[in-house]
Amino acid sequence: MIDYRLLQAMAAVLEQGGFEKAAQALNLTQSAVSQRIKQLEQQLGQPVLIRSLPPRATALGQRLHNHLQQVRQLEAGLELSANPDDLIIRITVNADSLDTWLPAALVLNTYPLLRFEVSVEDQAVGLRRMKQGEVMACLCASADPVNGGAVIPLGVMRYRALASPEFIQRYQLSAGESAHLQQAPCLVYSRDDRLQHQFLADVAGIEPLYTHHLPSSEGFIRAACAGLGYGMMPELQVRPELEQGLLVDLVPGYSLDVPLYWHYWQMESPVMETLRHSVVTAARQALY
Amino acid sequence: MIDYRLLQAMAAVLEQGGFEKAAQALNLTQSAVSQRIKQLEQQLGQPVLIRSLPPRATALGQRLHNHLQQVRQLEAGLELSANPDDLIIRITVNADSLDTWLPAALVLNTYPLLRFEVSVEDQAVGLRRMKQGEVMACLCASADPVNGGAVIPLGVMRYRALASPEFIQRYQLSAGESAHLQQAPCLVYSRDDRLQHQFLADVAGIEPLYTHHLPSSEGFIRAACAGLGYGMMPELQVRPELEQGLLVDLVPGYSLDVPLYWHYWQMESPVMETLRHSVVTAARQALY
Repeated sequence: MIDYRLLQAMAAVLEQGGFEKAAQALNLTQSAVSQRIKQLEQQLGQPVLIRSLPPRATALGQRLHNHLQQVRQLEAGLELSANPDDLIIRITVNADSLDTWLPAALVLNTYPLLRFEVSVEDQAVGLRRMKQGEVMACLCASADPVNGGAVIPLGVMRYRALASPEFIQRYQLSAGESAHLQQAPCLVYSRDDRLQHQFLADVAGIEPLYTHHLPSSEGFIRAACAGLGYGMMPELQVRPELEQGLLVDLVPGYSLDVPLYWHYWQMESPVMETLRHSVVTAARQALY
Repeated sequence: MIDYRLLQAMAAVLEQGGFEKAAQALNLTQSAVSQRIKQLEQQLGQPVLIRSLPPRATALGQRLHNHLQQVRQLEAGLELSANPDDLIIRITVNADSLDTWLPAALVLNTYPLLRFEVSVEDQAVGLRRMKQGEVMACLCASADPVNGGAVIPLGVMRYRALASPEFIQRYQLSAGESAHLQQAPCLVYSRDDRLQHQFLADVAGIEPLYTHHLPSSEGFIRAACAGLGYGMMPELQVRPELEQGLLVDLVPGYSLDVPLYWHYWQMESPVMETLRHSVVTAARQALY
Protein backbone atom coordinates (compact mmCIF):
# COMPACT_ATOMS: atom_id res chain seq x y z
CA MET A 1 0.00 0.00 0.00
CA ILE A 2 1.04 3.59 -0.57
CA ASP A 3 2.72 5.34 2.37
CA TYR A 4 0.22 8.13 2.91
CA ARG A 5 2.55 10.16 5.09
CA LEU A 6 4.70 10.60 2.01
CA LEU A 7 1.72 11.44 -0.19
CA GLN A 8 0.55 14.01 2.36
CA ALA A 9 3.93 15.71 2.24
CA MET A 10 3.67 15.94 -1.55
CA ALA A 11 0.08 17.24 -1.32
CA ALA A 12 1.05 19.84 1.27
CA VAL A 13 3.81 21.21 -0.97
CA LEU A 14 1.32 21.54 -3.84
CA GLU A 15 -1.51 22.94 -1.74
CA GLN A 16 0.60 25.37 0.27
CA GLY A 17 2.66 26.38 -2.76
CA GLY A 18 6.10 25.57 -1.35
CA PHE A 19 8.26 23.42 0.92
CA GLU A 20 8.52 25.96 3.72
CA LYS A 21 4.78 26.50 4.05
CA ALA A 22 4.17 22.75 3.71
CA ALA A 23 6.56 22.14 6.59
CA GLN A 24 4.68 24.68 8.72
CA ALA A 25 1.31 23.16 7.87
CA LEU A 26 2.52 19.64 8.72
CA ASN A 27 4.50 20.69 11.80
CA LEU A 28 7.66 19.24 10.29
CA THR A 29 11.04 20.65 9.40
CA GLN A 30 11.54 21.62 5.78
CA SER A 31 14.20 18.94 5.41
CA ALA A 32 11.76 16.27 6.70
CA VAL A 33 9.28 17.31 3.99
CA SER A 34 12.00 17.08 1.32
CA GLN A 35 13.07 13.68 2.62
CA ARG A 36 9.54 12.31 2.45
CA ILE A 37 9.12 13.44 -1.11
CA LYS A 38 12.49 11.95 -2.10
CA GLN A 39 11.47 8.70 -0.43
CA LEU A 40 8.17 8.67 -2.35
CA GLU A 41 10.02 9.30 -5.62
CA GLN A 42 12.51 6.53 -4.84
CA GLN A 43 9.68 4.08 -4.14
CA LEU A 44 7.96 4.99 -7.39
CA GLY A 45 11.11 5.33 -9.46
CA GLN A 46 9.81 8.61 -10.92
CA PRO A 47 9.58 12.27 -9.86
CA VAL A 48 6.26 13.49 -8.47
CA LEU A 49 7.15 17.17 -8.24
CA ILE A 50 8.69 19.69 -10.62
CA ARG A 51 10.90 21.92 -8.45
CA SER A 52 9.62 25.21 -9.88
CA LEU A 53 8.37 28.26 -7.98
CA PRO A 54 5.73 27.33 -6.84
CA PRO A 55 6.37 23.56 -7.17
CA ARG A 56 4.10 21.75 -9.64
CA ALA A 57 3.06 18.12 -9.87
CA THR A 58 4.32 15.79 -12.61
CA ALA A 59 1.68 13.72 -14.41
CA LEU A 60 2.27 10.99 -11.83
CA GLY A 61 2.09 13.53 -9.00
CA GLN A 62 -1.26 14.76 -10.34
CA ARG A 63 -2.69 11.24 -10.39
CA LEU A 64 -1.48 10.69 -6.83
CA HIS A 65 -2.82 14.04 -5.66
CA ASN A 66 -6.22 13.26 -7.12
CA HIS A 67 -6.12 9.82 -5.50
CA LEU A 68 -5.25 11.35 -2.12
CA GLN A 69 -8.17 13.75 -2.36
CA GLN A 70 -10.53 10.88 -3.07
CA VAL A 71 -9.14 8.97 -0.07
CA ARG A 72 -9.48 12.06 2.15
CA GLN A 73 -13.07 12.45 1.17
CA LEU A 74 -13.84 8.80 1.71
CA GLU A 75 -12.31 9.23 5.16
CA ALA A 76 -14.37 12.36 5.72
CA GLY A 77 -17.44 10.23 5.02
CA LEU A 78 -16.43 8.03 7.96
CA GLU A 79 -16.54 11.14 10.15
CA LEU A 80 -13.47 9.96 12.03
CA SER A 81 -11.19 12.73 10.88
CA ALA A 82 -10.76 15.86 12.92
CA ASN A 83 -8.12 17.32 10.63
CA PRO A 84 -9.67 20.16 8.64
CA ASP A 85 -7.09 19.75 5.87
CA ASP A 86 -8.78 16.49 5.00
CA LEU A 87 -12.03 18.29 4.28
CA ILE A 88 -11.08 20.67 1.50
CA ILE A 89 -13.26 20.39 -1.59
CA ARG A 90 -11.76 21.95 -4.69
CA ILE A 91 -14.20 22.74 -7.49
CA THR A 92 -14.03 24.90 -10.57
CA VAL A 93 -17.13 26.73 -11.80
CA ASN A 94 -18.31 29.31 -14.31
CA ALA A 95 -18.36 32.92 -13.10
CA ASP A 96 -22.08 33.54 -13.64
CA SER A 97 -23.11 30.56 -11.49
CA LEU A 98 -20.81 31.65 -8.66
CA ASP A 99 -22.39 35.10 -8.74
CA THR A 100 -25.96 33.81 -8.63
CA TRP A 101 -27.44 30.44 -7.64
CA LEU A 102 -24.40 28.31 -6.73
CA PRO A 103 -23.32 29.65 -3.28
CA ALA A 104 -26.56 28.51 -1.63
CA ALA A 105 -25.86 24.96 -2.88
CA LEU A 106 -22.52 24.89 -1.05
CA VAL A 107 -24.13 25.04 2.38
CA LEU A 108 -24.19 21.38 3.45
CA ASN A 109 -25.46 21.17 7.00
CA THR A 110 -24.49 17.51 7.31
CA TYR A 111 -20.83 18.44 6.79
CA PRO A 112 -20.29 21.63 8.82
CA LEU A 113 -16.48 21.41 8.71
CA LEU A 114 -16.10 21.24 4.94
CA ARG A 115 -14.02 23.90 3.29
CA PHE A 116 -14.46 24.91 -0.33
CA GLU A 117 -11.76 26.15 -2.63
CA VAL A 118 -13.65 27.47 -5.61
CA SER A 119 -11.88 28.61 -8.75
CA VAL A 120 -13.43 30.35 -11.74
CA GLU A 121 -12.21 29.04 -15.08
CA ASP A 122 -13.44 28.90 -18.61
CA GLN A 123 -14.70 25.50 -19.61
CA ALA A 124 -11.59 24.10 -21.35
CA VAL A 125 -9.33 25.02 -18.43
CA GLY A 126 -11.82 23.73 -15.87
CA LEU A 127 -12.10 20.30 -17.48
CA ARG A 128 -8.33 20.08 -17.87
CA ARG A 129 -7.88 20.82 -14.17
CA MET A 130 -10.36 18.07 -13.40
CA LYS A 131 -8.47 15.59 -15.62
CA GLN A 132 -5.28 16.57 -13.82
CA GLY A 133 -6.84 15.79 -10.47
CA GLU A 134 -6.62 19.39 -9.23
CA VAL A 135 -10.37 19.70 -8.70
CA MET A 136 -13.03 17.19 -7.63
CA ALA A 137 -15.83 18.58 -9.75
CA CYS A 138 -16.35 21.06 -12.57
CA LEU A 139 -19.43 23.13 -13.38
CA CYS A 140 -19.41 24.18 -17.03
CA ALA A 141 -21.25 24.14 -20.36
CA SER A 142 -19.65 20.99 -21.76
CA ALA A 143 -21.69 17.78 -21.82
CA ASP A 144 -18.70 15.49 -22.49
CA PRO A 145 -17.41 13.67 -19.40
CA VAL A 146 -13.68 13.33 -18.76
CA ASN A 147 -12.13 9.86 -18.59
CA GLY A 148 -13.42 8.14 -15.44
CA GLY A 149 -15.88 10.99 -14.92
CA ALA A 150 -19.64 11.31 -15.17
CA VAL A 151 -21.84 14.26 -15.99
CA ILE A 152 -25.32 15.41 -14.96
CA PRO A 153 -27.31 18.17 -16.72
CA LEU A 154 -28.34 21.01 -14.41
CA GLY A 155 -30.61 23.04 -16.68
CA VAL A 156 -29.97 26.12 -18.77
CA MET A 157 -28.92 29.63 -17.85
CA ARG A 158 -30.89 32.16 -19.90
CA TYR A 159 -29.03 35.21 -21.23
CA ARG A 160 -30.65 38.37 -22.58
CA ALA A 161 -29.05 41.15 -24.64
CA LEU A 162 -29.44 44.21 -22.42
CA ALA A 163 -28.45 47.86 -22.26
CA SER A 164 -29.50 51.00 -20.42
CA PRO A 165 -32.33 53.04 -22.00
CA GLU A 166 -29.93 56.02 -22.39
CA PHE A 167 -27.46 53.81 -24.23
CA ILE A 168 -30.17 52.57 -26.61
CA GLN A 169 -31.16 56.14 -27.34
CA ARG A 170 -27.57 57.40 -27.74
CA TYR A 171 -26.71 54.71 -30.30
CA GLN A 172 -30.18 54.73 -31.95
CA LEU A 173 -30.69 51.05 -31.33
CA SER A 174 -34.46 51.01 -30.93
CA ALA A 175 -35.07 50.63 -34.68
CA GLY A 176 -32.92 47.47 -34.73
CA GLU A 177 -30.72 48.59 -37.65
CA SER A 178 -27.69 46.35 -37.88
CA ALA A 179 -25.33 49.21 -38.83
CA HIS A 180 -26.17 50.98 -35.57
CA LEU A 181 -25.86 47.73 -33.61
CA GLN A 182 -22.39 47.16 -35.03
CA GLN A 183 -21.22 50.66 -34.08
CA ALA A 184 -22.43 50.37 -30.49
CA PRO A 185 -19.80 49.35 -27.91
CA CYS A 186 -20.20 45.80 -26.71
CA LEU A 187 -19.19 44.34 -23.33
CA VAL A 188 -17.43 40.98 -23.25
CA TYR A 189 -16.26 39.08 -20.20
CA SER A 190 -13.04 37.72 -21.74
CA ARG A 191 -11.66 36.51 -25.05
CA ASP A 192 -13.47 33.21 -24.50
CA ASP A 193 -16.86 34.87 -24.08
CA ARG A 194 -18.62 34.46 -27.44
CA LEU A 195 -22.19 35.17 -26.27
CA GLN A 196 -22.25 38.68 -27.70
CA HIS A 197 -20.85 37.45 -31.02
CA GLN A 198 -23.57 34.81 -31.07
CA PHE A 199 -26.25 37.45 -30.43
CA LEU A 200 -25.05 39.74 -33.24
CA ALA A 201 -24.72 36.77 -35.61
CA ASP A 202 -28.26 35.63 -34.74
CA VAL A 203 -30.05 38.95 -35.07
CA ALA A 204 -28.03 40.68 -37.79
CA GLY A 205 -25.39 38.35 -39.21
CA ILE A 206 -22.59 40.70 -38.13
CA GLU A 207 -19.64 40.82 -35.71
CA PRO A 208 -19.11 43.46 -33.01
CA LEU A 209 -16.66 46.22 -33.93
CA TYR A 210 -16.06 47.79 -30.53
CA THR A 211 -15.67 45.62 -27.45
CA HIS A 212 -14.78 46.35 -23.82
CA HIS A 213 -13.25 43.53 -21.76
CA LEU A 214 -14.59 43.36 -18.20
CA PRO A 215 -13.73 40.14 -16.38
CA SER A 216 -16.45 40.28 -13.68
CA SER A 217 -20.12 39.28 -13.93
CA GLU A 218 -21.22 41.97 -11.54
CA GLY A 219 -18.90 44.63 -13.03
CA PHE A 220 -20.43 43.77 -16.39
CA ILE A 221 -23.91 44.61 -15.12
CA ARG A 222 -22.73 47.81 -13.39
CA ALA A 223 -21.07 48.86 -16.69
CA ALA A 224 -24.23 48.15 -18.70
CA CYS A 225 -26.30 50.20 -16.23
CA ALA A 226 -23.78 53.06 -16.50
CA GLY A 227 -24.09 52.99 -20.30
CA LEU A 228 -20.59 51.77 -21.18
CA GLY A 229 -21.94 49.10 -23.51
CA TYR A 230 -24.50 46.38 -24.10
CA GLY A 231 -24.01 42.71 -23.41
CA MET A 232 -25.53 39.31 -22.73
CA MET A 233 -26.46 38.98 -19.05
CA PRO A 234 -27.99 36.11 -17.08
CA GLU A 235 -31.68 36.87 -16.51
CA LEU A 236 -31.18 35.45 -13.00
CA GLN A 237 -28.70 38.16 -12.10
CA VAL A 238 -30.50 41.25 -13.45
CA ARG A 239 -34.02 40.88 -12.09
CA PRO A 240 -33.85 44.09 -9.97
CA GLU A 241 -32.33 46.06 -12.89
CA LEU A 242 -35.06 44.79 -15.28
CA GLU A 243 -37.81 45.60 -12.78
CA GLN A 244 -36.46 49.10 -12.18
CA GLY A 245 -36.03 49.71 -15.93
CA LEU A 246 -32.26 50.28 -15.55
CA LEU A 247 -31.69 47.66 -18.25
CA VAL A 248 -33.94 46.82 -21.20
CA ASP A 249 -33.83 44.29 -24.04
CA LEU A 250 -32.09 45.28 -27.26
CA VAL A 251 -34.22 42.80 -29.19
CA PRO A 252 -37.37 42.04 -27.19
CA GLY A 253 -38.06 38.31 -27.07
CA TYR A 254 -34.47 37.31 -27.91
CA SER A 255 -32.60 35.10 -25.47
CA LEU A 256 -29.76 32.59 -25.53
CA ASP A 257 -29.87 29.46 -23.39
CA VAL A 258 -26.57 28.05 -22.14
CA PRO A 259 -26.79 24.51 -20.72
CA LEU A 260 -24.83 23.77 -17.57
CA TYR A 261 -23.43 20.42 -16.43
CA TRP A 262 -21.90 19.07 -13.23
CA HIS A 263 -18.82 16.91 -13.90
CA TYR A 264 -17.88 14.48 -11.14
CA TRP A 265 -15.85 11.30 -10.69
CA GLN A 266 -17.67 7.97 -11.09
CA MET A 267 -15.99 6.82 -7.89
CA GLU A 268 -17.69 9.44 -5.76
CA SER A 269 -17.19 9.90 -2.03
CA PRO A 270 -20.33 10.36 0.13
CA VAL A 271 -19.58 14.07 0.66
CA MET A 272 -19.24 14.67 -3.08
CA GLU A 273 -22.50 12.83 -3.63
CA THR A 274 -24.21 15.04 -1.04
CA LEU A 275 -22.75 18.11 -2.74
CA ARG A 276 -23.94 16.89 -6.15
CA HIS A 277 -27.50 16.43 -4.85
CA SER A 278 -27.42 19.91 -3.33
CA VAL A 279 -26.14 21.44 -6.59
CA VAL A 280 -28.80 19.63 -8.65
CA THR A 281 -31.56 20.76 -6.29
CA ALA A 282 -30.43 24.40 -6.30
CA ALA A 283 -29.99 24.36 -10.08
CA ARG A 284 -33.50 22.94 -10.64
CA GLN A 285 -34.92 25.82 -8.62
CA ALA A 286 -32.86 28.55 -10.27
CA LEU A 287 -32.32 27.44 -13.88
CA TYR A 288 -34.70 26.64 -16.72
CA MET B 1 12.68 57.78 -35.68
CA ILE B 2 11.19 54.36 -34.92
CA ASP B 3 9.43 52.65 -37.81
CA TYR B 4 5.95 52.41 -36.33
CA ARG B 5 4.75 49.87 -38.88
CA LEU B 6 7.25 47.47 -37.36
CA LEU B 7 6.20 48.35 -33.80
CA GLN B 8 2.57 47.83 -34.73
CA ALA B 9 3.36 44.34 -35.97
CA MET B 10 5.02 43.53 -32.65
CA ALA B 11 2.10 45.00 -30.69
CA ALA B 12 -0.42 43.06 -32.76
CA VAL B 13 1.36 39.77 -32.02
CA LEU B 14 1.26 40.55 -28.28
CA GLU B 15 -2.29 41.86 -28.24
CA GLN B 16 -3.77 39.16 -30.44
CA GLY B 17 -1.75 36.42 -28.76
CA GLY B 18 -0.07 35.03 -31.89
CA PHE B 19 1.33 35.64 -35.35
CA GLU B 20 -1.64 34.25 -37.24
CA LYS B 21 -4.21 36.39 -35.46
CA ALA B 22 -1.91 39.42 -35.71
CA ALA B 23 -1.71 38.91 -39.46
CA GLN B 24 -5.51 38.77 -39.67
CA ALA B 25 -5.90 41.91 -37.57
CA LEU B 26 -3.38 43.83 -39.69
CA ASN B 27 -4.61 42.44 -43.01
CA LEU B 28 -1.14 41.07 -43.77
CA THR B 29 0.24 37.64 -44.45
CA GLN B 30 1.78 35.84 -41.51
CA SER B 31 5.17 35.94 -43.19
CA ALA B 32 4.92 39.74 -43.58
CA VAL B 33 4.31 40.04 -39.83
CA SER B 34 7.33 37.84 -39.08
CA GLN B 35 9.47 39.87 -41.48
CA ARG B 36 8.52 43.14 -39.82
CA ILE B 37 9.42 41.84 -36.42
CA LYS B 38 12.74 40.47 -37.67
CA GLN B 39 13.45 43.85 -39.26
CA LEU B 40 12.68 45.62 -35.98
CA GLU B 41 14.98 43.26 -34.09
CA GLN B 42 17.77 43.78 -36.65
CA GLN B 43 17.44 47.57 -36.33
CA LEU B 44 17.61 47.34 -32.55
CA GLY B 45 20.19 44.57 -32.40
CA GLN B 46 18.09 42.76 -29.77
CA PRO B 47 15.01 40.51 -29.71
CA VAL B 48 11.67 42.10 -28.84
CA LEU B 49 9.62 38.90 -28.66
CA ILE B 50 10.06 35.57 -26.94
CA ARG B 51 8.67 32.96 -29.36
CA SER B 52 6.55 31.13 -26.76
CA LEU B 53 2.88 30.17 -27.01
CA PRO B 54 1.45 32.82 -26.76
CA PRO B 55 4.43 35.04 -27.67
CA ARG B 56 5.68 37.30 -24.90
CA ALA B 57 7.61 40.57 -24.98
CA THR B 58 11.25 40.83 -23.92
CA ALA B 59 12.10 43.68 -21.52
CA LEU B 60 12.90 45.81 -24.58
CA GLY B 61 9.64 44.70 -26.24
CA GLN B 62 7.71 45.74 -23.14
CA ARG B 63 9.25 49.20 -23.16
CA LEU B 64 8.43 49.57 -26.85
CA HIS B 65 4.89 48.30 -26.37
CA ASN B 66 4.31 50.78 -23.57
CA HIS B 67 5.77 53.54 -25.73
CA LEU B 68 3.48 52.60 -28.64
CA GLN B 69 0.45 52.75 -26.38
CA GLN B 70 1.41 56.22 -25.24
CA VAL B 71 1.84 57.31 -28.85
CA ARG B 72 -1.52 55.80 -29.81
CA GLN B 73 -3.23 57.67 -27.05
CA LEU B 74 -1.54 60.93 -27.94
CA GLU B 75 -2.80 60.34 -31.49
CA ALA B 76 -6.26 59.59 -30.17
CA GLY B 77 -6.16 63.00 -28.51
CA LEU B 78 -5.72 64.53 -31.97
CA GLU B 79 -8.96 62.82 -33.00
CA LEU B 80 -7.47 62.03 -36.39
CA SER B 81 -7.40 58.31 -35.98
CA ALA B 82 -10.24 56.17 -37.23
CA ASN B 83 -8.57 52.88 -36.33
CA PRO B 84 -10.27 51.44 -33.25
CA ASP B 85 -7.13 49.42 -32.40
CA ASP B 86 -5.46 52.71 -31.54
CA LEU B 87 -8.04 53.40 -28.89
CA ILE B 88 -7.67 50.46 -26.53
CA ILE B 89 -7.06 51.43 -22.90
CA ARG B 90 -5.69 48.62 -20.76
CA ILE B 91 -6.09 49.06 -17.02
CA THR B 92 -5.84 46.72 -14.08
CA VAL B 93 -8.10 47.17 -11.05
CA ASN B 94 -9.15 45.55 -7.78
CA ALA B 95 -12.19 43.27 -7.97
CA ASP B 96 -14.34 45.18 -5.47
CA SER B 97 -14.04 48.47 -7.39
CA LEU B 98 -14.97 46.79 -10.67
CA ASP B 99 -18.08 45.36 -9.01
CA THR B 100 -19.21 48.68 -7.56
CA TRP B 101 -18.28 52.29 -8.35
CA LEU B 102 -15.69 51.99 -11.14
CA PRO B 103 -17.78 51.09 -14.25
CA ALA B 104 -19.63 54.42 -14.21
CA ALA B 105 -16.25 56.20 -14.31
CA LEU B 106 -15.35 54.45 -17.57
CA VAL B 107 -18.08 56.17 -19.55
CA LEU B 108 -16.25 59.07 -21.23
CA ASN B 109 -18.63 60.85 -23.56
CA THR B 110 -15.83 62.90 -25.12
CA TYR B 111 -14.20 59.69 -26.38
CA PRO B 112 -17.06 57.51 -27.61
CA LEU B 113 -14.80 55.11 -29.55
CA LEU B 114 -12.53 54.15 -26.66
CA ARG B 115 -12.32 50.49 -25.79
CA PHE B 116 -11.36 49.25 -22.33
CA GLU B 117 -9.52 46.06 -21.54
CA VAL B 118 -9.89 45.72 -17.81
CA SER B 119 -8.07 43.03 -15.87
CA VAL B 120 -8.52 42.14 -12.21
CA GLU B 121 -5.26 41.55 -10.38
CA ASP B 122 -4.02 41.68 -6.87
CA GLN B 123 -1.92 44.72 -6.14
CA ALA B 124 1.58 43.26 -6.61
CA VAL B 125 0.70 41.76 -9.99
CA GLY B 126 -1.12 44.91 -11.11
CA LEU B 127 1.83 47.19 -10.38
CA ARG B 128 4.23 44.76 -12.06
CA ARG B 129 2.07 44.76 -15.18
CA MET B 130 2.16 48.55 -15.15
CA LYS B 131 5.97 48.58 -14.85
CA GLN B 132 6.12 46.16 -17.77
CA GLY B 133 4.06 48.49 -19.91
CA GLU B 134 1.16 46.06 -20.24
CA VAL B 135 -1.36 48.43 -18.68
CA MET B 136 -1.69 52.22 -18.75
CA ALA B 137 -3.04 52.60 -15.22
CA CYS B 138 -3.52 50.55 -12.09
CA LEU B 139 -6.14 50.92 -9.36
CA CYS B 140 -4.92 49.36 -6.11
CA ALA B 141 -4.19 49.86 -2.43
CA SER B 142 -0.51 50.74 -2.80
CA ALA B 143 0.55 54.37 -2.41
CA ASP B 144 4.03 53.89 -3.91
CA PRO B 145 4.35 55.03 -7.52
CA VAL B 146 6.27 52.94 -10.05
CA ASN B 147 9.32 54.44 -11.76
CA GLY B 148 8.11 57.22 -14.07
CA GLY B 149 4.64 56.93 -12.61
CA ALA B 150 2.50 59.14 -10.39
CA VAL B 151 -0.22 58.29 -7.93
CA ILE B 152 -3.40 60.00 -6.74
CA PRO B 153 -5.40 58.95 -3.64
CA LEU B 154 -9.03 58.12 -4.37
CA GLY B 155 -10.42 57.67 -0.87
CA VAL B 156 -11.05 54.57 1.21
CA MET B 157 -13.29 51.56 0.70
CA ARG B 158 -14.97 50.62 3.96
CA TYR B 159 -15.29 46.92 4.78
CA ARG B 160 -17.57 45.43 7.41
CA ALA B 161 -17.49 41.91 8.91
CA LEU B 162 -20.87 40.48 7.96
CA ALA B 163 -22.84 37.26 8.11
CA SER B 164 -26.44 36.13 7.83
CA PRO B 165 -28.52 36.18 11.05
CA GLU B 166 -28.99 32.38 10.79
CA PHE B 167 -25.23 31.91 10.55
CA ILE B 168 -24.64 34.06 13.65
CA GLN B 169 -27.18 31.99 15.55
CA ARG B 170 -25.86 28.62 14.32
CA TYR B 171 -22.28 29.42 15.38
CA GLN B 172 -23.33 31.33 18.54
CA LEU B 173 -21.49 34.45 17.48
CA SER B 174 -23.72 37.06 19.09
CA ALA B 175 -21.85 36.91 22.41
CA GLY B 176 -18.56 37.71 20.62
CA GLU B 177 -16.60 34.83 22.17
CA SER B 178 -13.36 34.35 20.31
CA ALA B 179 -13.50 30.53 20.50
CA HIS B 180 -16.81 30.56 18.64
CA LEU B 181 -15.49 33.09 16.15
CA GLN B 182 -12.49 30.91 15.40
CA GLN B 183 -14.67 27.84 14.78
CA ALA B 184 -16.99 29.65 12.38
CA PRO B 185 -16.22 29.20 8.66
CA CYS B 186 -14.70 32.28 7.09
CA LEU B 187 -14.93 33.41 3.45
CA VAL B 188 -11.78 34.65 1.74
CA TYR B 189 -11.46 35.91 -1.83
CA SER B 190 -8.03 34.40 -2.50
CA ARG B 191 -4.75 33.60 -0.76
CA ASP B 192 -3.83 37.29 -1.01
CA ASP B 193 -6.99 38.45 0.75
CA ARG B 194 -5.94 39.17 4.35
CA LEU B 195 -8.95 41.28 5.39
CA GLN B 196 -10.58 38.48 7.38
CA HIS B 197 -7.29 37.71 9.13
CA GLN B 198 -7.00 41.40 9.99
CA PHE B 199 -10.52 41.42 11.42
CA LEU B 200 -9.92 38.36 13.65
CA ALA B 201 -6.56 39.74 14.77
CA ASP B 202 -8.18 43.10 15.62
CA VAL B 203 -11.17 41.83 17.55
CA ALA B 204 -9.83 38.65 19.16
CA GLY B 205 -6.11 38.25 18.43
CA ILE B 206 -6.71 34.95 16.63
CA GLU B 207 -6.45 33.45 13.14
CA PRO B 208 -9.31 31.83 11.20
CA LEU B 209 -9.33 28.02 11.33
CA TYR B 210 -11.80 27.27 8.53
CA THR B 211 -11.74 29.23 5.31
CA HIS B 212 -13.61 28.93 2.02
CA HIS B 213 -11.96 30.39 -1.10
CA LEU B 214 -14.42 32.18 -3.39
CA PRO B 215 -12.76 34.32 -6.06
CA SER B 216 -15.73 36.61 -6.85
CA SER B 217 -16.92 39.71 -4.97
CA GLU B 218 -20.53 39.04 -5.78
CA GLY B 219 -20.29 35.28 -5.16
CA PHE B 220 -18.80 36.16 -1.79
CA ILE B 221 -21.91 38.15 -0.85
CA ARG B 222 -24.27 35.48 -2.18
CA ALA B 223 -22.36 32.89 -0.08
CA ALA B 224 -22.58 35.03 3.06
CA CYS B 225 -26.34 35.50 2.55
CA ALA B 226 -26.73 31.73 2.10
CA GLY B 227 -24.88 31.13 5.39
CA LEU B 228 -21.73 29.48 4.03
CA GLY B 229 -19.47 31.77 6.08
CA TYR B 230 -18.77 35.28 7.30
CA GLY B 231 -16.42 37.74 5.63
CA MET B 232 -15.34 41.33 5.10
CA MET B 233 -17.52 43.01 2.48
CA PRO B 234 -17.46 46.51 0.98
CA GLU B 235 -20.26 48.53 2.59
CA LEU B 236 -20.85 50.01 -0.87
CA GLN B 237 -21.78 46.61 -2.29
CA VAL B 238 -24.10 45.31 0.42
CA ARG B 239 -26.49 48.22 1.05
CA PRO B 240 -29.60 46.27 -0.09
CA GLU B 241 -28.58 43.21 1.98
CA LEU B 242 -27.98 45.39 5.08
CA GLU B 243 -31.32 47.19 4.61
CA GLN B 244 -33.21 43.92 4.20
CA GLY B 245 -31.44 42.36 7.21
CA LEU B 246 -29.97 39.54 5.07
CA LEU B 247 -26.53 40.44 6.43
CA VAL B 248 -25.66 41.87 9.84
CA ASP B 249 -22.47 42.98 11.58
CA LEU B 250 -20.51 40.39 13.56
CA VAL B 251 -19.03 43.14 15.72
CA PRO B 252 -21.26 46.23 15.51
CA GLY B 253 -19.21 49.37 14.97
CA TYR B 254 -16.18 47.51 13.59
CA SER B 255 -14.98 48.41 10.09
CA LEU B 256 -11.74 48.31 8.13
CA ASP B 257 -10.82 51.10 5.72
CA VAL B 258 -8.74 50.19 2.66
CA PRO B 259 -7.26 53.19 0.82
CA LEU B 260 -7.32 53.11 -2.97
CA TYR B 261 -4.94 54.83 -5.38
CA TRP B 262 -4.85 55.49 -9.10
CA HIS B 263 -1.41 54.87 -10.62
CA TYR B 264 -0.72 56.60 -13.93
CA TRP B 265 2.25 57.63 -16.05
CA GLN B 266 3.67 61.12 -15.53
CA MET B 267 3.72 61.56 -19.30
CA GLU B 268 -0.04 61.26 -19.61
CA SER B 269 -2.00 61.45 -22.85
CA PRO B 270 -5.13 63.65 -22.92
CA VAL B 271 -7.45 60.64 -22.93
CA MET B 272 -5.74 59.14 -19.86
CA GLU B 273 -6.01 62.51 -18.14
CA THR B 274 -9.74 62.62 -18.89
CA LEU B 275 -10.10 59.08 -17.56
CA ARG B 276 -8.19 60.00 -14.41
CA HIS B 277 -10.47 62.97 -13.74
CA SER B 278 -13.52 60.76 -14.26
CA VAL B 279 -12.16 58.10 -11.88
CA VAL B 280 -11.33 60.68 -9.22
CA THR B 281 -14.80 62.24 -9.49
CA ALA B 282 -16.60 58.88 -9.26
CA ALA B 283 -14.38 57.77 -6.37
CA ARG B 284 -15.05 60.99 -4.41
CA GLN B 285 -18.78 60.32 -4.70
CA ALA B 286 -18.62 56.64 -3.79
CA LEU B 287 -15.71 56.27 -1.33
CA TYR B 288 -15.01 57.79 2.06
